[in-house]
Amino acid sequence: MTSSPAVSDKPIGIAVIGAGYWGPNLVRNFQGSTAFRLRWLCDLDVERARRVLGDYSTVQVTDDLDTVLADDAVQAVAIATPAGTHLPVALAALRAGKHVLVEKPLAATYDEGRQLVEEADRRGLTLMCDHTYCYTPAVLRIRELLHAGELGELHYLDSVRINLGLVQRDIDVIWDLAPHDLSILDFVLPPGVAPVAVAAHGVDGIGAGRSCVAYLTLALNSGAIAHIHVNWLSPVKIRTAIIGGSKRTLVWDDLNPSQRLAIFDRGVDVATPDELGAEERHDMLVSYRSGDMVAPALTEREALRTMVEEYARAIRTGSPALTDGRSGLRVLQILQAASHSLTKGGVMVDLEGESER
Amino acid sequence: MTSSPAVSDKPIGIAVIGAGYWGPNLVRNFQGSTAFRLRWLCDLDVERARRVLGDYSTVQVTDDLDTVLADDAVQAVAIATPAGTHLPVALAALRAGKHVLVEKPLAATYDEGRQLVEEADRRGLTLMCDHTYCYTPAVLRIRELLHAGELGELHYLDSVRINLGLVQRDIDVIWDLAPHDLSILDFVLPPGVAPVAVAAHGVDGIGAGRSCVAYLTLALNSGAIAHIHVNWLSPVKIRTAIIGGSKRTLVWDDLNPSQRLAIFDRGVDVATPDELGAEERHDMLVSYRSGDMVAPALTEREALRTMVEEYARAIRTGSPALTDGRSGLRVLQILQAASHSLTKGGVMVDLEGESER
Amino acid sequence: MTSSPAVSDKPIGIAVIGAGYWGPNLVRNFQGSTAFRLRWLCDLDVERARRVLGDYSTVQVTDDLDTVLADDAVQAVAIATPAGTHLPVALAALRAGKHVLVEKPLAATYDEGRQLVEEADRRGLTLMCDHTYCYTPAVLRIRELLHAGELGELHYLDSVRINLGLVQRDIDVIWDLAPHDLSILDFVLPPGVAPVAVAAHGVDGIGAGRSCVAYLTLALNSGAIAHIHVNWLSPVKIRTAIIGGSKRTLVWDDLNPSQRLAIFDRGVDVATPDELGAEERHDMLVSYRSGDMVAPALTEREALRTMVEEYARAIRTGSPALTDGRSGLRVLQILQAASHSLTKGGVMVDLEGESER
Amino acid sequence: MTSSPAVSDKPIGIAVIGAGYWGPNLVRNFQGSTAFRLRWLCDLDVERARRVLGDYSTVQVTDDLDTVLADDAVQAVAIATPAGTHLPVALAALRAGKHVLVEKPLAATYDEGRQLVEEADRRGLTLMCDHTYCYTPAVLRIRELLHAGELGELHYLDSVRINLGLVQRDIDVIWDLAPHDLSILDFVLPPGVAPVAVAAHGVDGIGAGRSCVAYLTLALNSGAIAHIHVNWLSPVKIRTAIIGGSKRTLVWDDLNPSQRLAIFDRGVDVATPDELGAEERHDMLVSYRSGDMVAPALTEREALRTMVEEYARAIRTGSPALTDGRSGLRVLQILQAASHSLTKGGVMVDLEGESER
Repeated sequence: MTSSPAVSDKPIGIAVIGAGYWGPNLVRNFQGSTAFRLRWLCDLDVERARRVLGDYSTVQVTDDLDTVLADDAVQAVAIATPAGTHLPVALAALRAGKHVLVEKPLAATYDEGRQLVEEADRRGLTLMCDHTYCYTPAVLRIRELLHAGELGELHYLDSVRINLGLVQRDIDVIWDLAPHDLSILDFVLPPGVAPVAVAAHGVDGIGAGRSCVAYLTLALNSGAIAHIHVNWLSPVKIRTAIIGGSKRTLVWDDLNPSQRLAIFDRGVDVATPDELGAEERHDMLVSYRSGDMVAPALTEREALRTMVEEYARAIRTGSPALTDGRSGLRVLQILQAASHSLTKGGVMVDLEGESER
Repeated sequence: MTSSPAVSDKPIGIAVIGAGYWGPNLVRNFQGSTAFRLRWLCDLDVERARRVLGDYSTVQVTDDLDTVLADDAVQAVAIATPAGTHLPVALAALRAGKHVLVEKPLAATYDEGRQLVEEADRRGLTLMCDHTYCYTPAVLRIRELLHAGELGELHYLDSVRINLGLVQRDIDVIWDLAPHDLSILDFVLPPGVAPVAVAAHGVDGIGAGRSCVAYLTLALNSGAIAHIHVNWLSPVKIRTAIIGGSKRTLVWDDLNPSQRLAIFDRGVDVATPDELGAEERHDMLVSYRSGDMVAPALTEREALRTMVEEYARAIRTGSPALTDGRSGLRVLQILQAASHSLTKGGVMVDLEGESER
Repeated sequence: MTSSPAVSDKPIGIAVIGAGYWGPNLVRNFQGSTAFRLRWLCDLDVERARRVLGDYSTVQVTDDLDTVLADDAVQAVAIATPAGTHLPVALAALRAGKHVLVEKPLAATYDEGRQLVEEADRRGLTLMCDHTYCYTPAVLRIRELLHAGELGELHYLDSVRINLGLVQRDIDVIWDLAPHDLSILDFVLPPGVAPVAVAAHGVDGIGAGRSCVAYLTLALNSGAIAHIHVNWLSPVKIRTAIIGGSKRTLVWDDLNPSQRLAIFDRGVDVATPDELGAEERHDMLVSYRSGDMVAPALTEREALRTMVEEYARAIRTGSPALTDGRSGLRVLQILQAASHSLTKGGVMVDLEGESER
Repeated sequence: MTSSPAVSDKPIGIAVIGAGYWGPNLVRNFQGSTAFRLRWLCDLDVERARRVLGDYSTVQVTDDLDTVLADDAVQAVAIATPAGTHLPVALAALRAGKHVLVEKPLAATYDEGRQLVEEADRRGLTLMCDHTYCYTPAVLRIRELLHAGELGELHYLDSVRINLGLVQRDIDVIWDLAPHDLSILDFVLPPGVAPVAVAAHGVDGIGAGRSCVAYLTLALNSGAIAHIHVNWLSPVKIRTAIIGGSKRTLVWDDLNPSQRLAIFDRGVDVATPDELGAEERHDMLVSYRSGDMVAPALTEREALRTMVEEYARAIRTGSPALTDGRSGLRVLQILQAASHSLTKGGVMVDLEGESER
């Protein structure tokens, strides 16, 4: 990491590239962080960039990426442009010696993502993926609980993310919404547990030319299952995940601010054969737990603020961000296999080598 | 139907076979119906049958099916025994000239179910499947709406039925819970629309030796998709279906008595190529509707009461019940294909001939 | 209690008087209890009584109370007739040496209620009021928690019971619905804490000639406040109580079966002057707790079943029922004072002697 | 209104006074409005003002009100200082010829509020009260519905606003929270309908030295009732209002973004005597409607943005704002009468002359 730019306690000079849907959120959070000093907002549409900053801002605006990358006061960039442009923009930034934060997904393809990871590695620069949901207090707590074994062994994870959403021009609902669920899955799974195959089913419905409703089923190496429902056409908004473990089950309802997490000490236990005498082995011994539910108190904190601090920490320490380029790459691998499965009528596709099972 | 037993306006003599989980509900509803006269409750465990009737009943109890079938005052039976026994019990009843109502699923296999349907046809007797949910005011209304085209063309149906349920000894969660969703699907789909293939994924989790969490994906002949999530391990109880159409989308929440149905005039429209000029064809034209939601008033009525009345109507008129043996057979066909898919790692299985795609 | 009728382990012979709205529930629960043997259902409208029992019952029907009271096999009665008839019916039963259970409210007036209590005392008979809600698992747990001091000192209790309810001919919404809340309050308050005054506001609205929406405010001797909102005109059904204590706050949502009770370790603490130094006394020290919420597991059990068992226990042991006549009397006292307050424009009325403050 | 400052289409120069809790929201919204040009943020604590603006702002900061008022580029001010300072700050601004927007409540007392209204009248300047909730899409729609008679005649309004809130040092929960409900009530009531008396009950609970839980009951001149529950000690956050009318009933749940308004065609009708024949008059004829519920689509729009536009409109046209000083005064009148009632044990206090009834 010796080749990383010298970083002191001074605020890190940052530029935001892209003033569209997500850029304004980055602008607001970098402005609000003492760890950064926002130097530029760059967008091909300068007027749009100006509108984002408003009439009272001292931040510079430009439509020229080279100008930004040539500015020595800029040590890092945050890229919120369409996924198809991530590769050239991020590569240019890395080659200019800048740390890079990229909006999800990391890149348009797994290969493009791998180029970025390799380039960052080669140069000892931070490459981070803005998997925003991972930095919500709820998901951070879920990660803690799963890593500490509080739920026991994972049995299943069921995630629903549906809404009347924007039908994207260039990507289907899997590439649009599932990166959230997949990055969360990647983030919370305990070490050693990982997806090994994925099957995807989808339907267009409205003639959009791409799936607007889709289901992903992931097989994990532990024997557990993960299932993701993403949907642009639902008039009701649901963002829920149920994570079933051998000891407890957790329900995350992201739209219920007063009770985002609920941990249930309820479940079903089956005695294993080893615990049973000869005769009992004929019968399955099932018992039911019906214990209390605990909704842990969570601090209310904007996820992006925590994400921005993690970016600063990664830059300053040279150690990988919690959602580094590699996590972005793992998400891309699953997305790509899911697309493959979709074209093959839902067959289960192995992640390694993406072979059909 | 000339061979059907003569039926007058007198109450139909009925016997309930099976005093386990479901039998008591049938007993209560046949007792409450003026169309029937409950003659017998029959169970191998006579004491259990007595307990179901209580200490104040004039209904006869027996453990001998033959006694019941030999009673000329009995014109019809209702069978609530384990699925594996449906074939012999129902066959015996039909051969004794009795009309038959069978608890879901119709039989343990498609072939067994077909034998029952053929036997009933041959004898001109009513064979009905107790698909109870179809007779809830909510599902009856959904059927009306879909048949009348009120939702437009069906895009997708997403059903979730999860709970901390009883882990069954002999069947997996698909055979236990999905018959509800599949019978509802069969019931509400407009004429001409039907499933053609199914894929199933499941996980055991607790070492029960069978799937405790499962997902079914059905391809319909119209291009639409239906998806069913059934789960015995969820600490929270959810029974919801979202039915997305081209004009409106309906949400059914069976556990919300004050708002079981919600019809949303919200959605996404895409202009079809024919409506577009040459240049517009390059761009997809997407528009969003964000209209009101209407929660129709539903009468509160016990589904079993309506089901019992439909059984009487079918017996009296000789015309098929709304959920006749054939509907039970169609459900069995999908269940069997789903089991096939499950053993093949989730591959899509055609319903006709059950061939893998 | 030596004058009480000899009671052995044999089932207690019981008669239900009144086959209207509530009677059928009593009939069903006495039939289901091994502690009782239901002998009679008595109603002025014999046909109505027959319909309640159905076509398969061995229970006797009559329209003649004297016949019931003359039956030596009847040791106890349960009265579910209109409140205006409670006095004569219950008095007759007591004078015939029968134990008496009365549907809420105990009687039409405080004086009538007192006559019943005195008569039962004189004869050593059980007089119990069917305050059904007190026997729900949720309220039993609330009582436990409050009696054990788990919530700390009680600050306030806020109860809402609203619905599109039946507009009664003879009583207003306070006399119809508030007995539930008042009996619960009486049941759960820790020893030594009791209401001392009540103010009532109401509005008719629809020209019914009596209040259809009303609010009761009760001052407790501890300085705490209790507030009750009862409403016949609400299109939404709400049955909630919030019980705020110095240590914890409990929320009871009777219509949320999956989470009827929620205990919050959240609140506001103010340092008392004694804990403060001279300078700090100028400033109030407020601190906020934001702890977890626990939703305790509750067994699902029909309240009436528990109530019926408590009736048997009280009869068998000769000790007062948890909701004995005196508790019914305390509820009547508040109802009467509330009616007084209502006619006086909402002035606070003392319960002792019912003087306006 | 000829004496009002000349107002062109140019942005109105504005200064925000007070950078505490509410000031930042005003700053953000005035910055976002093309109708205004934010010139100053003024606070006795200049550092606090700087923090509110952030490190990238061109807006001027000062701790000197006179400097702001002496600036000719400032035509209007927005005051978000503690209520006790509203009189001197707003008076100074009006005397300097500036239009004035004041955070609720208008002033610390009715008399102070009246001075402001009179001063603004005298000078032909806009005086507006920031009753923010009135500008939410939901409340604007409620006003429309009530003014158009869509609910029929108003029977009751029940408002609940409870939360674990900040215990204020100088005011009780009524003065802190009820201004929201009272300003909404004032805003939505149809012309001619108005409160005429108020009763208040409260409890301190935690030793804060002022009411932390309180209930207001308002008698309206139409015979209807309004009831408000405000509470700083509730661990659950509820913001609901039920508005019962003779034709329909509306439920507003401000915390349910997917269904903030629900209009129920459910209710109770009582035939009026005129409609009845001689014999029927003995009996009350009650009928129940059980119609659909409609949840109207509402645009999502920040209330403050609409409020800011209304301020601009009022300034530009010289016509009163929807929530002008007089509406703020009516709210103060009720608050003061409520405080009076509180000290008198909850007696109903007339609003005119504030006499006890």
